[in-house]
Amino acid sequence: MKGIIQDVKGRKAVYGDDWSNAFAAGPRIFAPIAYIFFASALPVIAFGEQLSRETDGSLSTVETLASTALCGIIHSLIGGQPLLVVGVAEPTVIMYSYIYSFAISSDAVGKKLYLAWAGWVCVWTALMLILLAVFDACNILNKFTRLAGETFGMLIAVLFFQQAVKGMVGEFSPTEGEDEKSPDHSFQWLYVNGLLGVIFTFGVLITALKSRKARSWEYGTGWFRSIIADYGVPLVVMAWAALSLTVPRQVPEGIPRRLQTPLPWDPASMGHWTVFMDMAKVPPGFILAAIIPAVMVAGLYFFDHSVASQMAQQKEFNIKKPSAYHYDILILGITTLICGLIGLPPCNGVLPQSPMHTKSLSVLNGQLIRKKMVQTAKESMMQHDSKSKTYGRMEEAFVEMDGSAAPSAAKELKNLKEAVMSEGSKEGGESSFDPEKIDAYLPVRVIEQRFSNFMQSLLIGVSLMAMPVIKKIPTSVLWGYFAYMAIDSLPGNQFWERIVLLLITPTRRHKILERPHASFNETVPFKEIAKFTIFQLIYFLICFGVTWIPVAGILFPLPFFFLISIREKILPKFFQPNHLKELDGVEYEEIEGDPMRTRSMSLRRTNSRDAGFEEEAEVFDELTTGRGELRLRSASVSQERSNQVYPGNFLDG
Amino acid sequence: MKGIIQDVKGRKAVYGDDWSNAFAAGPRIFAPIAYIFFASALPVIAFGEQLSRETDGSLSTVETLASTALCGIIHSLIGGQPLLVVGVAEPTVIMYSYIYSFAISSDAVGKKLYLAWAGWVCVWTALMLILLAVFDACNILNKFTRLAGETFGMLIAVLFFQQAVKGMVGEFSPTEGEDEKSPDHSFQWLYVNGLLGVIFTFGVLITALKSRKARSWEYGTGWFRSIIADYGVPLVVMAWAALSLTVPRQVPEGIPRRLQTPLPWDPASMGHWTVFMDMAKVPPGFILAAIIPAVMVAGLYFFDHSVASQMAQQKEFNIKKPSAYHYDILILGITTLICGLIGLPPCNGVLPQSPMHTKSLSVLNGQLIRKKMVQTAKESMMQHDSKSKTYGRMEEAFVEMDGSAAPSAAKELKNLKEAVMSEGSKEGGESSFDPEKIDAYLPVRVIEQRFSNFMQSLLIGVSLMAMPVIKKIPTSVLWGYFAYMAIDSLPGNQFWERIVLLLITPTRRHKILERPHASFNETVPFKEIAKFTIFQLIYFLICFGVTWIPVAGILFPLPFFFLISIREKILPKFFQPNHLKELDGVEYEEIEGDPMRTRSMSLRRTNSRDAGFEEEAEVFDELTTGRGELRLRSASVSQERSNQVYPGNFLDG
Repeated sequence: MKGIIQDVKGRKAVYGDDWSNAFAAGPRIFAPIAYIFFASALPVIAFGEQLSRETDGSLSTVETLASTALCGIIHSLIGGQPLLVVGVAEPTVIMYSYIYSFAISSDAVGKKLYLAWAGWVCVWTALMLILLAVFDACNILNKFTRLAGETFGMLIAVLFFQQAVKGMVGEFSPTEGEDEKSPDHSFQWLYVNGLLGVIFTFGVLITALKSRKARSWEYGTGWFRSIIADYGVPLVVMAWAALSLTVPRQVPEGIPRRLQTPLPWDPASMGHWTVFMDMAKVPPGFILAAIIPAVMVAGLYFFDHSVASQMAQQKEFNIKKPSAYHYDILILGITTLICGLIGLPPCNGVLPQSPMHTKSLSVLNGQLIRKKMVQTAKESMMQHDSKSKTYGRMEEAFVEMDGSAAPSAAKELKNLKEAVMSEGSKEGGESSFDPEKIDAYLPVRVIEQRFSNFMQSLLIGVSLMAMPVIKKIPTSVLWGYFAYMAIDSLPGNQFWERIVLLLITPTRRHKILERPHASFNETVPFKEIAKFTIFQLIYFLICFGVTWIPVAGILFPLPFFFLISIREKILPKFFQPNHLKELDGVEYEEIEGDPMRTRSMSLRRTNSRDAGFEEEAEVFDELTTGRGELRLRSASVSQERSNQVYPGNFLDG
Repeated sequence: MKGIIQDVKGRKAVYGDDWSNAFAAGPRIFAPIAYIFFASALPVIAFGEQLSRETDGSLSTVETLASTALCGIIHSLIGGQPLLVVGVAEPTVIMYSYIYSFAISSDAVGKKLYLAWAGWVCVWTALMLILLAVFDACNILNKFTRLAGETFGMLIAVLFFQQAVKGMVGEFSPTEGEDEKSPDHSFQWLYVNGLLGVIFTFGVLITALKSRKARSWEYGTGWFRSIIADYGVPLVVMAWAALSLTVPRQVPEGIPRRLQTPLPWDPASMGHWTVFMDMAKVPPGFILAAIIPAVMVAGLYFFDHSVASQMAQQKEFNIKKPSAYHYDILILGITTLICGLIGLPPCNGVLPQSPMHTKSLSVLNGQLIRKKMVQTAKESMMQHDSKSKTYGRMEEAFVEMDGSAAPSAAKELKNLKEAVMSEGSKEGGESSFDPEKIDAYLPVRVIEQRFSNFMQSLLIGVSLMAMPVIKKIPTSVLWGYFAYMAIDSLPGNQFWERIVLLLITPTRRHKILERPHASFNETVPFKEIAKFTIFQLIYFLICFGVTWIPVAGILFPLPFFFLISIREKILPKFFQPNHLKELDGVEYEEIEGDPMRTRSMSLRRTNSRDAGFEEEAEVFDELTTGRGELRLRSASVSQERSNQVYPGNFLDG
């Protein structure tokens, strides 16, 4: 309970701020809004299609979008950490698929009562989440090391890839299920559909992967490159969807195959809202049985939600406002309950959107503060102020813009002060400091507010109206997108990087050290790395195997929960503690001896000196993994909390 | 005449050597043979298909292969420079297409007498080539600067690309022409054929481009990577061709469309050998008219052949035996005549195969010499010889292996001597030199002989028997290969690199300097580079435009001949001489101020220290352009000749 109360206190103190800050930022706040909207809408659509295949259309894109909008709005209004973005994510889709296959396996439930039974799962899940929140379970988050997290991440990637391949191959065979839209099943047209599928899948995959790197292209203006880098993947999907409309007239309607989802205003979509009425019809035995999947879902949500939140508040972002892990789990429980009752798949905190959200806000804010301070500096140079006066005015400006306490600001502006004072000291007292170079000395700042999150959730709700357009997307485009998500999630996953390391020829291993790399490459003998990785690989294959078991597959998260205690109890018997620390430590342990650590920041600085924030964003890209995680996270949860200003200091500050 | 005589003298003196050296090398000589065979067979097959489309099957892969084998054998037996590889190349194909369209445009000649008339063109061409040889025209090669060469190279690349696009799009529309093999022209099957075409074309293009970089991959053993890098493209073509055989049974025969070439033993292929009998039937007016295309062909051959030969003897290869530019032109004239009379498209020296040939022989030879010398060194260390003795024995071994004169060898082994002497001087007289490190001190050596060239030509002849297999290659695979050839020929073409430079955003131009780059980037102001490039671009577009003119297109080489005098007379009026030198100098001028110059060689050295010749080959790749040209050529023709040992010194040496 302590945790929740503390969180509520902390966030309450800044709630007004959470709104006013947004409006202070002015219309430019809509850039991050659009950015996050596209980033979260697309996967939700993709997951919707996946769900509708796995559940024979009981759930579809309509429900996933609706749920994401609803939960997003609730979270942005009364949630704790407004930087955290929620949405229907892969664990939900996978669990809901298992729940479906389990439901239809018994006549007592069947397709008819599927959503009702799923409702019960949500009820139990909600209950457990609320209990976890009340008993301050977030404090055990530190036990959650990379090992379990990355093995799970790998599983998700593999499942995505499996979905992509299954989907693409499926384009060659007729679709079954009642809502059969495809034309004559003649072999010829199926074959055409399949070939188009291959082209679209690979087309999307390749172009999407290329667009990710756009910021570091050498061609095109910085503005153009940023657009591609920020909106590239949605643009790619749109482009290929548009291209798919150009097939010659002779090709029958429905080739290539497109999203099979009802419109929000179709009767098919209307059944949901009254699910809670059917919930009584579920036989008691099943109501109890629902506890089993509930445990799984609760476990997954608890970790996913907290980790996403954690990554949205990484130390490098200099978050000022307090975190609210416990309280957010409580809210998560409530939204899960609501979704369950109205027959929607629930949401949880999503990666990489959450850290992307923070990132976009920090870049934006950087621009605003910079503008203001450069202006101030120039003014006071006009008036030939002394250096100290100039600096003083700049600090004022910073404090004003940043709304942070003068003393703390002074500390953070140390570099700037030195710069202003030192530079041009030769030509006497008057400051000859070049204000344009100010970026180099500004600390990272994030506009912490609720508006952007609220708006993007609202937009997702609005996009429901655009369903007739969304339905034009060929399914094969989504398979390409799934493959992209899978591949894009691998870099930065140390499990993956260690597997790769095993494949590199010994003579070339040194090349690893020339790139940004985790410290274990330097400190742990290769034999140990191999041993650890092979163990992890075998364990992973077991986990993957579990997902193939028809009904018991519902237990697939179990091995990951075990893994946490295996890490704690068994692994230390086989590995030296210091090796274990390096290979699978909590983050602050990984920092030591990491060459990138220091470089990263200076790098960012120097770049921004000449080419401003566009470049800065590029370096951010380099530093962040596919999951939006800073490659070298410098803080565990506990640390982070302590880094963030608590209500007390915040008020009197 | 002087030139020819000198050449003949020079080559006669080493003719015996040209064979004995090969056998000295032992069975390993077959590695370069296989390498060059694949490298030259594939384009010849592709050009054959292109020809058969342009000439409605009058000529096809059978003829291009036959001609390449024939000319190759002749050249390797009695030709001057045996490192030079000949084959049916793009100028031939293009000219023969124009000759065809011209022939059929008049009833007097028509398809029937096409080859006879082409025969006359060859007769005239041969005559001119022989005259060029006799009058020592090769001495004007120095006037042939990058400007004309690279503009022409760009034209070839664009024509390839055009062919690839035309071909791929063509897969969607029915083939005309009497040898109609494609199945029912139903839209459906055409569309399937088209889609398969798109998949194969892009598949080949992308995989081929990837395989080019194989040597620098981090995965797989060095051996595996070298195989991919050396044979990647043929392997890629085979792989996709094999894949194309896996289309389901329901797909009718002839989809995807495959090579449309008769078998060598079909009557269609048998008509050629008697063409000279029909040549009398060609009306006198046309016999004279044949002079016009002949001038073009002669011009193209003269330059292509000489440049190819030149690149096969670049200074960096330390070629010991004399060159034979004049004499080879004479031989070229003769082979052209023969081909013309028996109705085959003639051959000329090809890029990049010629320098690839030399390169493969130098790497091989390096391995042989190294083996021998390391062994010697180790022996004499066993016997605790003094350093000087050790070195002495190593030098003997080198001279023995290399067959070069002791004094010259001593000069070239200076580094080695120093190494042996200096290292380990601390522990007294005895040498503690590590023989494994010997690569670092060995000069590049090429096994100069005729066997490899002879054998690969023979293999091409043999591959005619494999035509039933070759016919299984889908045409769309060839379109992908054309696109690959086009793209692969661009890097290293300074015209292209300057165009790219214009597209790079100013803030990022500096990045060019971080890569290997031509010196003009440092020494010529951007404005001037832009001016020069835009002029070249406009001129290029004119040249490209000419190729579109139906019959007069036959004159397309003309603007390039003009370009040589434009460069000489007009350009100096618009550009400062030193800028002109940098942008379009003969090679030795380009060397100055080039950072790579020194680095390149040392780079090669250090690498080979640890990982031997596999690494060395990689660096060779880095240093050579798509055309197999060393990025920084250090010698003009005139220089090269003087670098090579002349019969006199060679004998008494």
